[in-house]
Amino acid sequence: MYIAKVIGNVVSTKKDDSLIGSKLMILKVVHADSSHDVIVAVDLVGSGVDDYVLVSCGSAARQTFINQKIPVDAAIVGIIDNFNEGMIKDGTGY
Amino acid sequence: MYIAKVIGNVVSTKKDDSLIGSKLMILKVVHADSSHDVIVAVDLVGSGVDDYVLVSCGSAARQTFINQKIPVDAAIVGIIDNFNEGMIKDGTGY
Amino acid sequence: MYIAKVIGNVVSTKKDDSLIGSKLMILKVVHADSSHDVIVAVDLVGSGVDDYVLVSCGSAARQTFINQKIPVDAAIVGIIDNFNEGMIKDGTGY
Amino acid sequence: MYIAKVIGNVVSTKKDDSLIGSKLMILKVVHADSSHDVIVAVDLVGSGVDDYVLVSCGSAARQTFINQKIPVDAAIVGIIDNFNEGMIKDGTGY
Amino acid sequence: MYIAKVIGNVVSTKKDDSLIGSKLMILKVVHADSSHDVIVAVDLVGSGVDDYVLVSCGSAARQTFINQKIPVDAAIVGIIDNFNEGMIKDGTGY
Repeated sequence: MYIAKVIGNVVSTKKDDSLIGSKLMILKVVHADSSHDVIVAVDLVGSGVDDYVLVSCGSAARQTFINQKIPVDAAIVGIIDNFNEGMIKDGTGY
Repeated sequence: MYIAKVIGNVVSTKKDDSLIGSKLMILKVVHADSSHDVIVAVDLVGSGVDDYVLVSCGSAARQTFINQKIPVDAAIVGIIDNFNEGMIKDGTGY
Repeated sequence: MYIAKVIGNVVSTKKDDSLIGSKLMILKVVHADSSHDVIVAVDLVGSGVDDYVLVSCGSAARQTFINQKIPVDAAIVGIIDNFNEGMIKDGTGY
Repeated sequence: MYIAKVIGNVVSTKKDDSLIGSKLMILKVVHADSSHDVIVAVDLVGSGVDDYVLVSCGSAARQTFINQKIPVDAAIVGIIDNFNEGMIKDGTGY
Repeated sequence: MYIAKVIGNVVSTKKDDSLIGSKLMILKVVHADSSHDVIVAVDLVGSGVDDYVLVSCGSAARQTFINQKIPVDAAIVGIIDNFNEGMIKDGTGY
């Protein structure tokens, strides 16, 4: 899984029917070497902007959906308590 | 999922039979650190050049196909309303 | 999928039995930011050196094999007509 | 699989029910070119901070769970005896 | 698949039972832009240090195992005859 920061949400009026009702959040993935990937994940736990979250990618993202036939490859599966990017960047550990 | 910009389409006369009839679009994936991956995805929602789209990768890309036995690893599953790369680049969020 | 250029083929006398008879090509993946990954893919459409091809990765690569129990994670599924790397590099689109 | 160093653990009170009871560790993946990805993995072998571990990603991470329907995409599957990052960095091999 | 060079092996006394008996090799993945990722793969063809090998990743890595329920995401599936990194680096092809 990745640690990521929620920075916004995506509005997509024209989308695959199976995504209707899904909350699509934009995330910046936390890498130690400060390169930031931007991904979109379906929110499963009620996260909001500025939350640090745990995001599962690939087929793992569909495991908790009743209907697993939806085209989702990333899902927010947890909100992280008390997270601080600084400790990861300078390598002292968390 | 990734956010990506549609920059063109691919014409491939000699291809796997199961891809015949698929609309293959060339996409530049939006990364916060302005590096750009170029990928090709099957269009499922009628997107066009210059659209910002939501693209699902891996086995997720085959979930909405009636015949899931086609060699596709990326699919455009939504067109994003009002997207602006600038906000992601400078980290102010979206 | 990726766009890639075929730059050669791999000869592997000592390999898994299920790969015997497979044509293994070496590819340079086209990225907009000119970094080049080198991957090997099974050829399904009769491509040759200097061809620009469409390559599917992950479980997608096994979808068109009669025997899907072979350890393949990349397959060439199309030869691209009239492709020009320059247009992707300078961001003008294709 | 990756080699990674355990640098801490994640506390997530609000998470998917299927993750309750899982030990979530923060890992720095060892790359030869000293860039470090930060990932989170479920611990299956009792690892602790500063251990160098073997981490399996993607659908592989769910293979040893009795209930494979949990949204996990990385699992610690071994603790590495006597590992030294230096030998990998300077390319002399291990 | 990737081309990689075998640089050593991993010893892991404390590991998932399903990995007992597996030969775990450390590999440097060959990229054209000379960045080197370090991964660990199960050896299926009897490779040794300094061999250049063909490595399959993701679910492909488990296709040839009788018991596919093992947490493996990379497997060495071939030893490459007469490989030379130089030709890939300078882009002249192989």
